[in-house]
Amino acid sequence: MTTAATTPAISFTHIDPSGPVPAPAIGWEEYFRTTPPPDFLEPAGKRVEEFVALHAKAGRRVVLVTSGGTTVPLEQNTVRFIDNFSAGTRGATSAEYFIEAGYAVIFMHRQFSLQPYSRHYSHSRNCFLDYMQEDGHGGLIVDRKYSDHMREVLLKYQRAKREHLLIMETFVTVQDYLFLLRRFTTAMSILRENAMYYLAAAVSDFFIPQSKMAQHKIQSAEGALVLQLDQVPKIISPLVDTWAAKGFIVSFKLETDPDLLIQKSRRSLERYKHQLVIGNILTTRKKVVTFVTTKEETKLELTDEELRNGVEIEERIIPELIRRHDKWIIQTKSQ
Amino acid sequence: MTTAATTPAISFTHIDPSGPVPAPAIGWEEYFRTTPPPDFLEPAGKRVEEFVALHAKAGRRVVLVTSGGTTVPLEQNTVRFIDNFSAGTRGATSAEYFIEAGYAVIFMHRQFSLQPYSRHYSHSRNCFLDYMQEDGHGGLIVDRKYSDHMREVLLKYQRAKREHLLIMETFVTVQDYLFLLRRFTTAMSILRENAMYYLAAAVSDFFIPQSKMAQHKIQSAEGALVLQLDQVPKIISPLVDTWAAKGFIVSFKLETDPDLLIQKSRRSLERYKHQLVIGNILTTRKKVVTFVTTKEETKLELTDEELRNGVEIEERIIPELIRRHDKWIIQTKSQ
Repeated sequence: MTTAATTPAISFTHIDPSGPVPAPAIGWEEYFRTTPPPDFLEPAGKRVEEFVALHAKAGRRVVLVTSGGTTVPLEQNTVRFIDNFSAGTRGATSAEYFIEAGYAVIFMHRQFSLQPYSRHYSHSRNCFLDYMQEDGHGGLIVDRKYSDHMREVLLKYQRAKREHLLIMETFVTVQDYLFLLRRFTTAMSILRENAMYYLAAAVSDFFIPQSKMAQHKIQSAEGALVLQLDQVPKIISPLVDTWAAKGFIVSFKLETDPDLLIQKSRRSLERYKHQLVIGNILTTRKKVVTFVTTKEETKLELTDEELRNGVEIEERIIPELIRRHDKWIIQTKSQ
Repeated sequence: MTTAATTPAISFTHIDPSGPVPAPAIGWEEYFRTTPPPDFLEPAGKRVEEFVALHAKAGRRVVLVTSGGTTVPLEQNTVRFIDNFSAGTRGATSAEYFIEAGYAVIFMHRQFSLQPYSRHYSHSRNCFLDYMQEDGHGGLIVDRKYSDHMREVLLKYQRAKREHLLIMETFVTVQDYLFLLRRFTTAMSILRENAMYYLAAAVSDFFIPQSKMAQHKIQSAEGALVLQLDQVPKIISPLVDTWAAKGFIVSFKLETDPDLLIQKSRRSLERYKHQLVIGNILTTRKKVVTFVTTKEETKLELTDEELRNGVEIEERIIPELIRRHDKWIIQTKSQ
């Protein structure tokens, strides 16, 4: 037994032999068998099926972009939850460049995280109200100082809407995420190698199974609070093997310790056998990313001047990805 | 020792005598002594001091509105954190009605949570891009269908800016929150009974002290993850006794179990001896709230028709609060 002074705040059950016996990590089949689906799954699945059918018919490539962090509720009537840091910038920005390059985008994102186009004027940065003025006839206009940039964004947004190039679906919890991912990728499988999966969402590794969850808000008590979380099943495994077979699959690895990044990216590729990991470090993720395959690694990096001039690293990521997707399509078709 | 099947996911250390010895909950003095202040504390404190001085001179009442949820980082380089559910609707909406009623507002809110005025057009609901169109001369105008409502919001926003009636300061972690709260309320103490404290933020009850925190992203391991969190000191205690003495202090109690609400609200009043608790239930918080004092409770409730017509319950909360603040001022001055 340890004393208060040496009790670690974060530990794993297998480390402490005197602690409770850990539940073994469950597989994805068991996860889906024992977890109720979110009630919005069916309508969302149907919308995505229609979207996929439309673009399959047109022979257009489709990319699933996942974006933002998933939550892990601590209570069934949720007041508290564990969250993963992600504003959704990577996903929302990438979606715009994919559309510009001719892809149709399924934007599966955390509710209230950043979205393509509107991200340029989030309410906390560049508040659009600061750009508005009265026109003197009871109407409103955008200040001419800002309207050129805003018009550019607006025209792209309107084209994406008009040509049905973007569908947006939302998740909150890791449970929502897992069910939507299975449903959407299964729907996309008819696209075969024309589908890309761009898994930029920050997904929880640990969760509390519904059966172990408190029903109501946890009441504060005299002692410290102890949470024990199970491992989330590794969903990329059935995704690669079954749901998205033939598709081009890109996962992300975010670390804070640069020493771990390449090694962990490569281990992920060896384990799941998908096509590409994009590695990035929390503090430099807007400046540099590394494309890691089993064979090589390629660094994409912006200069400080480019960053100052508002160049976005996704402007580099997406063309490089599309080049690799082209190759993948040729290679897969010739097999 | 328990087996996997019966291990509770959430427990308190004092419940399990075979578990680690709980650290006693620390007091606020010790918290501030052992926790480093956020580096933005001083500039934020100075801005609020100036704001308070301006309105103290004008004899205007000032309300501190806290809004949104605080986070509890699980790592020093934070990827994962515990969060409290709150979009910031209550705080952002209330701030508008306070300004309309003649108060100056210090809006201390969670970064990226809803803000007064822009909340009407958040990017995920009523996206402002849907309201814009080209004017045919290279400029942009707001579609006349929407511009009446938007003009109303814009004019209120512009007045608040022009007359310096609103200052916005942000927090992310519970640590930020505690330091800002102490700094801002101390700055407001010169306002005496003219100050109101409207504590609508959803503040964490548990946290991981910096000394126990992992430096880097927690790596997933074979076992379940165990988190042990300490209790956050009850900050309302020094707020009532020292920092905000003479001010009118309103705290919120959010519960999911209606049976606990009044009892817990009253216990809070008995413990901290402030003026009012506004109790609300997670699922009905936009329709009904209960004002609880040591002597009585008053329910404010919207009808279904009012809700459908877009009436906001803060339209009722704020006038009722101001009535009570009026009484408080008279009563305090006559003492």
